Amino acid sequence: MRAIDVIVKKRDGGSLSSDEIEFFIDGVTRGTIPDYQVSAWLMAVVLRGMTPEETALLTEAMVHSGVRVDLSDISGHKVDKHSTGGVGDKTSLILAPLAAACGVTVPMMSGRGLGHTGGTLDKLEAIPGFRVGLSLDEMKAALRRTGVAMLGQTAQIAPADKKLYAMRDVTGTVESIPLISASIMSKKIAEGIDALVLDVKTGNGAFMKTPEASRRLAESLVSIGKAAGVRTEAIITAMDAPLGRAVGNALEVAECIDVLKGGGPSDLVDVSLELTARMLALGGVAPDRDTARARARAAIASGDGLDRFRRIVENQGGDPRIVDDRSRLPAAPERHVVRADRGGFVNRVEAGLVGRASVCLGAGRDRVDDRIDPAVGILVLAKPGDQVERGDGLLELHYGDAGRRDAALALLAESITIGDAPGPPAPLVVDEVL
Amino acid sequence: MRAIDVIVKKRDGGSLSSDEIEFFIDGVTRGTIPDYQVSAWLMAVVLRGMTPEETALLTEAMVHSGVRVDLSDISGHKVDKHSTGGVGDKTSLILAPLAAACGVTVPMMSGRGLGHTGGTLDKLEAIPGFRVGLSLDEMKAALRRTGVAMLGQTAQIAPADKKLYAMRDVTGTVESIPLISASIMSKKIAEGIDALVLDVKTGNGAFMKTPEASRRLAESLVSIGKAAGVRTEAIITAMDAPLGRAVGNALEVAECIDVLKGGGPSDLVDVSLELTARMLALGGVAPDRDTARARARAAIASGDGLDRFRRIVENQGGDPRIVDDRSRLPAAPERHVVRADRGGFVNRVEAGLVGRASVCLGAGRDRVDDRIDPAVGILVLAKPGDQVERGDGLLELHYGDAGRRDAALALLAESITIGDAPGPPAPLVVDEVL
Repeated sequence: MRAIDVIVKKRDGGSLSSDEIEFFIDGVTRGTIPDYQVSAWLMAVVLRGMTPEETALLTEAMVHSGVRVDLSDISGHKVDKHSTGGVGDKTSLILAPLAAACGVTVPMMSGRGLGHTGGTLDKLEAIPGFRVGLSLDEMKAALRRTGVAMLGQTAQIAPADKKLYAMRDVTGTVESIPLISASIMSKKIAEGIDALVLDVKTGNGAFMKTPEASRRLAESLVSIGKAAGVRTEAIITAMDAPLGRAVGNALEVAECIDVLKGGGPSDLVDVSLELTARMLALGGVAPDRDTARARARAAIASGDGLDRFRRIVENQGGDPRIVDDRSRLPAAPERHVVRADRGGFVNRVEAGLVGRASVCLGAGRDRVDDRIDPAVGILVLAKPGDQVERGDGLLELHYGDAGRRDAALALLAESITIGDAPGPPAPLVVDEVL
Repeated sequence: MRAIDVIVKKRDGGSLSSDEIEFFIDGVTRGTIPDYQVSAWLMAVVLRGMTPEETALLTEAMVHSGVRVDLSDISGHKVDKHSTGGVGDKTSLILAPLAAACGVTVPMMSGRGLGHTGGTLDKLEAIPGFRVGLSLDEMKAALRRTGVAMLGQTAQIAPADKKLYAMRDVTGTVESIPLISASIMSKKIAEGIDALVLDVKTGNGAFMKTPEASRRLAESLVSIGKAAGVRTEAIITAMDAPLGRAVGNALEVAECIDVLKGGGPSDLVDVSLELTARMLALGGVAPDRDTARARARAAIASGDGLDRFRRIVENQGGDPRIVDDRSRLPAAPERHVVRADRGGFVNRVEAGLVGRASVCLGAGRDRVDDRIDPAVGILVLAKPGDQVERGDGLLELHYGDAGRRDAALALLAESITIGDAPGPPAPLVVDEVL
């Protein structure tokens, strides 16, 4: 078989066979297919698409490029959650301890932030000492001890995805539902989980801007998961405004602790409980989603969720005192409050702009090798629907460098709309794919 | 400007600006854009296409990647011909001396054969001593002395095309009218010509299989030429059967000499005269095409064309005695005749199969670095329309190696159809684009 024939077949709109996909992904993994052929193939896939069968075969080939972790020696139902990424999207730090406290095992491999969206690993590393670079053995030890491991993708997991992703990033071939689906699902399937709940974001702060595109992605992800024997379902949630109030790593950790203590912004609480409940039901430890949601609420009320979070932090080398003493988290030296220039109702807080402003401050990265500052970020003081008076605080910037602050302010100038009446109520959970 | 933004714009179906195209082609030429971005862009161009304006800009950028030769110090109207390639397509060796004998100047840069189609340079090199590797100064000296130069593309001519073509060949991005058009026309425009006649082949032995596709290519080529200030027209000619009887380099040279002596197969004579007449009319040395055709015929009858051919050969280091003594051309040691297994009318001699069989014998190459044998090839003894008896010769293979002969025979087995009645008459010149 020759790489060029596989490229030409896809270029002409053909469906690739199992052999052709395995040959190509094997060549990518072993480096025997040159980069210029890989990128030509990726562009052909972006523009010609793939059938659900091809996408499933691609995912399978990418899983087989590395190891599929065997967690059969770990007790419990292994359940993970994956989000397609948003602004202020910090639910993992809440639902992983909550779900574990309610009886499922959570082997969670996450990524770093890129562009305007944050990443779970960056948030965890805002906790002094927290170590996300666990080996597979350390992951298993963590699962045995606390029922949760929160770590980065190890080199054994889907190495083909690592190569393809790096190539897609520089060749304009990121935007493809089959390629996105195979990338996400190959890593999740390789984790060795029994069940997976997906949170597909939709809106201006999400990768998919419309509910229709988000639903197509959700359907693709769910069908791949099921084909690989992983019980999978997806919810589609709004990402027009930041989730919760905190955007920026240490600020987000603090907000997660608030939620685990029974407080926190209601939108963040609602999405976290919805995802936790689905993890419990899909994991088979609750008979239905209502029971599961009540159990998750109870784990907050009893402090079991917070206790589990403390144990995770301690087990992975972090300072557990942050849970009760916020001053032990990194804090930025300066504050700046953006105030309302008129009274009225907040109609819009644009997630995309807040996310990009937060990158400007140093909370995220535009390139994979950019350094981030865990302390900086933005607090959303007024959420959509809130009534404000002229002069009320809308956004609070936490920063160190005045130049970065000004760049962020320039982006934020157009991020908030205040109207005479509240906007129409917008549902948080837009859709589901079972 | 960033290469990835140009890739993404084309991926999303946008039209690239002059600046974007110049930036990209300059990056290709200087090697500052990595191969994997070049190939992703090429695939996006293949699948999204280019407007006529973009194609003209691409051609212009490719011309400017090297020199546009200044022939203003050479007398006469400079006119060239380009064919998109076929089997037995040897008109250049006939029309270059004929057109020069009739008063135009012919600076002809040609290519080598690849795949089942032959190349003018390979044919010329079948003449002992003939040197096609002229410098631009040697080209001008040849034009001054004989009115014709027949040479390969020099390194100064459209270097971006050289890089892009090598990349297209290995990434499945050859099949694109904008890319093919820019590749052909950038080289022709850079030659410094005033006028150009294009012979776009159509049929099973051509790159474009249908008259519609051939017409689209012809229109694209003609519009680019005109935009660059070169008087350009195209004819679309049939390439279902080989042109003439000879396929293979020395065999084709001999057939060209036959035509210049007033003989030769009528289809080859007709296409050669048609192209020559258009070169003369477009070059402005004949008032109309009928006068031009009569003058070309007269140049054959008078021996002026043959004499010009002899002078070209001599001037470029070749042995002019081949003109009168065919035994001085390379000859293969063995002959094999394929005979008719029934009587009837020859309905079909498939050019594609004859071309591939000729490559099998060693007359052409599948890869640019394959060596060819100038002596081997195939003579088509019976052309479409001919009446044959059982046992009559249909094809005569000239070969050296029995293994290659058998491989060629396997391909040729299905190449000829004999029916009870002659097939419908098929026009040779199918269409024109002025």
